[in-house]
Amino acid sequence: MTTRPRGRNFFFAPGPTNIPDRILGAMHRPTIDFFDPSFIELQKFATDGVKRLLKTKQHMLFYAANGHGAWEAGLVNCFSPGERVLVIESGHFSHHWSMMAEELGLEVETLNADWRHGVDLKVLEAHLKADKDKDKAIKGILVVHNETATGLSAPIGDIRKVMDKAKHPALLLADTISSLGSFDFRMDEWGVDIVVGGSQKGLMMVTGLGFTGISAKAMARAEKNTENSTGARKSYFNWAAMRATEPQRFPGTTPVHLFYGLAESVKIIDEEGLDNIFKRHHRLANATRAAIAHWGGGTKSDMRISLAGMTGKVEGIELLCADAARASDSVSAILVPDGHDAQALRKHALERYNLALGGGLGPLAGRVFRIGHLGDLNEPMLLGALATTELAMADRGIPHAAGGVNAAIQALRKG
Amino acid sequence: MTTRPRGRNFFFAPGPTNIPDRILGAMHRPTIDFFDPSFIELQKFATDGVKRLLKTKQHMLFYAANGHGAWEAGLVNCFSPGERVLVIESGHFSHHWSMMAEELGLEVETLNADWRHGVDLKVLEAHLKADKDKDKAIKGILVVHNETATGLSAPIGDIRKVMDKAKHPALLLADTISSLGSFDFRMDEWGVDIVVGGSQKGLMMVTGLGFTGISAKAMARAEKNTENSTGARKSYFNWAAMRATEPQRFPGTTPVHLFYGLAESVKIIDEEGLDNIFKRHHRLANATRAAIAHWGGGTKSDMRISLAGMTGKVEGIELLCADAARASDSVSAILVPDGHDAQALRKHALERYNLALGGGLGPLAGRVFRIGHLGDLNEPMLLGALATTELAMADRGIPHAAGGVNAAIQALRKG
Amino acid sequence: MTTRPRGRNFFFAPGPTNIPDRILGAMHRPTIDFFDPSFIELQKFATDGVKRLLKTKQHMLFYAANGHGAWEAGLVNCFSPGERVLVIESGHFSHHWSMMAEELGLEVETLNADWRHGVDLKVLEAHLKADKDKDKAIKGILVVHNETATGLSAPIGDIRKVMDKAKHPALLLADTISSLGSFDFRMDEWGVDIVVGGSQKGLMMVTGLGFTGISAKAMARAEKNTENSTGARKSYFNWAAMRATEPQRFPGTTPVHLFYGLAESVKIIDEEGLDNIFKRHHRLANATRAAIAHWGGGTKSDMRISLAGMTGKVEGIELLCADAARASDSVSAILVPDGHDAQALRKHALERYNLALGGGLGPLAGRVFRIGHLGDLNEPMLLGALATTELAMADRGIPHAAGGVNAAIQALRKG
Amino acid sequence: MTTRPRGRNFFFAPGPTNIPDRILGAMHRPTIDFFDPSFIELQKFATDGVKRLLKTKQHMLFYAANGHGAWEAGLVNCFSPGERVLVIESGHFSHHWSMMAEELGLEVETLNADWRHGVDLKVLEAHLKADKDKDKAIKGILVVHNETATGLSAPIGDIRKVMDKAKHPALLLADTISSLGSFDFRMDEWGVDIVVGGSQKGLMMVTGLGFTGISAKAMARAEKNTENSTGARKSYFNWAAMRATEPQRFPGTTPVHLFYGLAESVKIIDEEGLDNIFKRHHRLANATRAAIAHWGGGTKSDMRISLAGMTGKVEGIELLCADAARASDSVSAILVPDGHDAQALRKHALERYNLALGGGLGPLAGRVFRIGHLGDLNEPMLLGALATTELAMADRGIPHAAGGVNAAIQALRKG
Repeated sequence: MTTRPRGRNFFFAPGPTNIPDRILGAMHRPTIDFFDPSFIELQKFATDGVKRLLKTKQHMLFYAANGHGAWEAGLVNCFSPGERVLVIESGHFSHHWSMMAEELGLEVETLNADWRHGVDLKVLEAHLKADKDKDKAIKGILVVHNETATGLSAPIGDIRKVMDKAKHPALLLADTISSLGSFDFRMDEWGVDIVVGGSQKGLMMVTGLGFTGISAKAMARAEKNTENSTGARKSYFNWAAMRATEPQRFPGTTPVHLFYGLAESVKIIDEEGLDNIFKRHHRLANATRAAIAHWGGGTKSDMRISLAGMTGKVEGIELLCADAARASDSVSAILVPDGHDAQALRKHALERYNLALGGGLGPLAGRVFRIGHLGDLNEPMLLGALATTELAMADRGIPHAAGGVNAAIQALRKG
Repeated sequence: MTTRPRGRNFFFAPGPTNIPDRILGAMHRPTIDFFDPSFIELQKFATDGVKRLLKTKQHMLFYAANGHGAWEAGLVNCFSPGERVLVIESGHFSHHWSMMAEELGLEVETLNADWRHGVDLKVLEAHLKADKDKDKAIKGILVVHNETATGLSAPIGDIRKVMDKAKHPALLLADTISSLGSFDFRMDEWGVDIVVGGSQKGLMMVTGLGFTGISAKAMARAEKNTENSTGARKSYFNWAAMRATEPQRFPGTTPVHLFYGLAESVKIIDEEGLDNIFKRHHRLANATRAAIAHWGGGTKSDMRISLAGMTGKVEGIELLCADAARASDSVSAILVPDGHDAQALRKHALERYNLALGGGLGPLAGRVFRIGHLGDLNEPMLLGALATTELAMADRGIPHAAGGVNAAIQALRKG
Repeated sequence: MTTRPRGRNFFFAPGPTNIPDRILGAMHRPTIDFFDPSFIELQKFATDGVKRLLKTKQHMLFYAANGHGAWEAGLVNCFSPGERVLVIESGHFSHHWSMMAEELGLEVETLNADWRHGVDLKVLEAHLKADKDKDKAIKGILVVHNETATGLSAPIGDIRKVMDKAKHPALLLADTISSLGSFDFRMDEWGVDIVVGGSQKGLMMVTGLGFTGISAKAMARAEKNTENSTGARKSYFNWAAMRATEPQRFPGTTPVHLFYGLAESVKIIDEEGLDNIFKRHHRLANATRAAIAHWGGGTKSDMRISLAGMTGKVEGIELLCADAARASDSVSAILVPDGHDAQALRKHALERYNLALGGGLGPLAGRVFRIGHLGDLNEPMLLGALATTELAMADRGIPHAAGGVNAAIQALRKG
Repeated sequence: MTTRPRGRNFFFAPGPTNIPDRILGAMHRPTIDFFDPSFIELQKFATDGVKRLLKTKQHMLFYAANGHGAWEAGLVNCFSPGERVLVIESGHFSHHWSMMAEELGLEVETLNADWRHGVDLKVLEAHLKADKDKDKAIKGILVVHNETATGLSAPIGDIRKVMDKAKHPALLLADTISSLGSFDFRMDEWGVDIVVGGSQKGLMMVTGLGFTGISAKAMARAEKNTENSTGARKSYFNWAAMRATEPQRFPGTTPVHLFYGLAESVKIIDEEGLDNIFKRHHRLANATRAAIAHWGGGTKSDMRISLAGMTGKVEGIELLCADAARASDSVSAILVPDGHDAQALRKHALERYNLALGGGLGPLAGRVFRIGHLGDLNEPMLLGALATTELAMADRGIPHAAGGVNAAIQALRKG
């Protein structure tokens, strides 16, 4: 087997995230019958905990699947083949969600946006107003709350306001896979109809449990689909069967151990408190951005990016997200200067220092590396990762101003 | 939280099964990037191991899903809505697989059979010969290798022979969820086209990883579906995307920890050797059946069972499976005499003795309890479960001849 | 590495005992500074819990050592070389404790007793009355509460009464290594001055933490020794240094992980409650004795045993302990008939069935095997062990009446 | 329970050390009979591994005890009360070992030395030559290889040369508790007679297993003591009983789980290779020292220290060890400027950032903090600790030049 340098692997890819020992320990238990009353209690406890995380009092269903399974669940239960959805472009993951919608027979419209800035709300408003259909042609709006590939967050609450202003009745679907539990999300307050989440990021769990928050409105739509047989064909992700019991049943065997871990995750989150968690993520994200800005010496490139690729020149280290207000508190994507290879940097950091950084996806391959600063993270972990990133950049000859950690320390002192 | 009596929980429901400490330990590790070369090696090792278990050199794909997800994967990749499949009735799970096929738009025919005896091969032969369609109307035959609900195994090799004799070109799909790794299965030799499996039974793993063995013929059919767009709509379970890399990619995040566990499972299985594993299961199953026969004093009822329910009288403890040649080596379902409540027995065994027995499913609810004798099991574990079952039956006043353990010991002495 | 048959190792040697998964899990944590306030809390919690187990409000000190270290601690702190102690013979362990006392320079007198019956209280009384010395020559009385080698318990409360009746001021030292937490012990009520315990039996922990309960009287004697420099030379086990802080300090590094485990042990014990634990052990011990009696068909041999060896004939399986009132609730030693080899039986049970039985120690080597029925044990575990023991006896041709498990089941039904 | 900030506890006290997950996992297993052949193999494997670490082919004995137990074992087996030993002063731990020798009845001479510089070899030589006794009065020389309290290492090989030059026959005893497995030690080549070690530092294990390497010469002396009854009274640490079997027996129960962990430790060490381990420690120690030097801006105080206390002025952050050639590669003690409180810094680092630093011992209390850089450590872990130390110093107003991490990065780039 490939060996790594000694000492802990510093895992700073933006997902899955560091799994606290407590969660691994909670999963290190014999199995139990999933009909056992003590398991039922635990399943309910974990479910309620995730609902608090979503800030919803509506529905919640889990899947023995990862977040992509939850993507599919939302689509097949609420929409029928041929129906139209609008995808708000933000990067790699918005694109993949739209590809899934197409595979499932939906008609997909994309609201284009540069990946460094994200959606222009005025353009969205105009687009929705242009949907003159009597019943409105757009049945769902798909938005990724946090683009893991670019470190760009979307203003979901504002998007809801735009929809309300345009009096548009479409369902609002939000992918919160890499934001939930890291920065604020409010399903009920923001009127989100389907919230897609997974176990392996802010919940600090192993991969394998996807879930959806489901509004009463979305559930009603799903039920109507079933009655009329107009909906998509589905079985594994069919809400109707799962909802039949309380807490829910799974098609087939319930993933007992994943709930063991999830229940512990909920306890850890409750102990710290959501607001403290958000503050901690913001503080650590700020420190990361301070280091990045220091490395780049304040360079701001004119680089733009979309599915089609990148344009413009990158002269120094730079945060990919160009809109400070939308910079993600859970992940930062970092541009390396033209002519330098982010992939080689990652390989070196891993093989030489046991530091795992995230890579660039799609058109960003080789052009960015990513630092995940989410989940079970604190100052020494982050500072160690930033310092080692700087060390690795020095080793690889990637131009940067030395002293990024000092800048991060200053930011932490303020924050 | 509900508390249990001290000491180990004796888990004898027929799935999930006892998870060896080694597997739990293997999962108790920090996460790793699923692109990390050392993980890729591990993923490949685990995949190859499961292929050896299936006795196939053809294709194998995993899903972040349980066995029901793998059921769906087989159906949506190989069949188009409106196509006909034949389900060989064997019990609760054959019925549920057929229900799934219907939900996914297939036309389902059921070859009825009594749940205590299983398929009559002559009836099957006649049925296949009656498929006079030029291209043959039946596109797939679905058979459950081991009915977990009844402890009845199906003669897959013989079914293949019947198909060959009838020159029927349908794909043969086998659900091996509760047989794989417990008794013999030979995908390539028996010409099975799609083999459905899950991590949580013979592989002794936690629930959450489903998989399919896929024959070249089935894969060709799946590819043709995609080219022609005639197939079912699918995304999460779409083989085309997964096959693009080697080892496979997952839609979304790869379930790293489930592969950690699976790799350890493969090592454990390799160490014992498949033939030894099968012999051990047969020996332990025989001992279980000897205890059951002793408890019943040789009573044989005329009870018959189908979806419609049970008919006939049960006067003593009796093995549900009425055909000795098809009695499962991984699970035994045990009829309790009329007027007695198997469910109350299970509750008592759990609450008083920390022994978890399986319950009756569907029409068998309350009429049978089940003993899973699969996975990480040995003589002391099984004898402890049988002795405690007898103790619990005595407590609950369920008529039985005392001394079942002696009978089991005698059987083990011979075996 | 030597391999074992699959499935759980059934560990029925009478110590160390089965360690509950919860305790192993509690030790599976990163280290912490032993001056960290959160560790101090945990250390105090564990210490208080063990004091409740001893039923004492007096002193308690732990050692990074096993029970033999605690033996030594009691001797070197309370006695000076040349002082006389009386050891009440009960078997292998009383003999070894007396050997240790001799090594440490004490003058040892042994009150002889047959290992199947234990101390004759009248003989003890006479012996104490015969100590006519003005200051009494006997400074300490050493008694093993539960002879792990023979399954014989000693009536400590009655011994105290005899001492009181004889107005004998000696310190009373009790080894509770294999009784504590399994059956009743009352340090303060019974006037025990030094209680020796270890982590690896009733506390269900790994080996490595020894401890002593210390009465005010014993502590005063230890302090006087130190002041006058008359005591034994000691450093690692010197109470004076350990007592200086609250909770205690260790010489050198505190064994943090052993306290992690011990604290969980205390929680588990508290949850069940001591009285329930004692009842459970008594019920399971009774069932074990019922099986043994059944196997032997009621034979009672005239066998006697002492350090010098065994005399008399053994014709059938028989419980070694010949005094029902003193039969241990934590371990049973079982005589095999003359001409049969208990050691070969153990080897077979381990290699063929993964059942670990205890062996005969000293003069009992090859003549007895032992079943530990202490710690984290329940009915299915015990019945599995008894059934497999019977199976192994059958394999090895050791004469016995089949059906021991039935007898155990009957005993459990009553108890 | 006291709660800590989220994220990993950064454990940088110089012992116990970070325990790799693999070792914790190896201990998370059911117990086994310590007479079981598979355990005997493991015990032998672990013993052989530690002998390779000591670079000895002579004797090795383990104790269910921490390193202080091993201290005692060396003293009581090789020396008789009244015999004289020479302790080479180096700091807190040399002092405590000498106190133990006194408690055990030995006559202790101390070769005084300043704690920042350590032994003057010329003074040692003169001292040994002054031992004009026919049989030489000094029977043993006790030296601490690495003073954990001060970060000062002793030149054991040179001390042996001085002894040889002085033709002094005393036994040479070395405490390697905090050096073994971190930097080079050569028992046989350097002619060390008794090597004292513990499980919880370079072996990266939990605390609870002490051990001694024993030269043939030391063993002969121990045997002679026993024959003549001239030796110290001992039982728990008596070598004679332990050596009777191969591998050794323990008095009482063998600490099975501690050997589980130790065997894994040996595997981890073998995989990396001792020379690589030493290089890694040297590189990381150098980086630590670079940061410290940077923080202090090159200040060098005239501070001196002995048991009597500190003299001189400390004006800036400074490495306690004043002799670069003897600076420890496993721990650095760092002086804080006069008027500043190292203890308050540690408290803040722990409570605010979950970073555990070591404290000052004895006369150094409050005047130094310590960074352990031993065991399972790599660049990101160390840089994270250094950065957070700087952050905490800034928070607490301890004067320092910002940028220590940059200096460490530069040192790592070179090294």
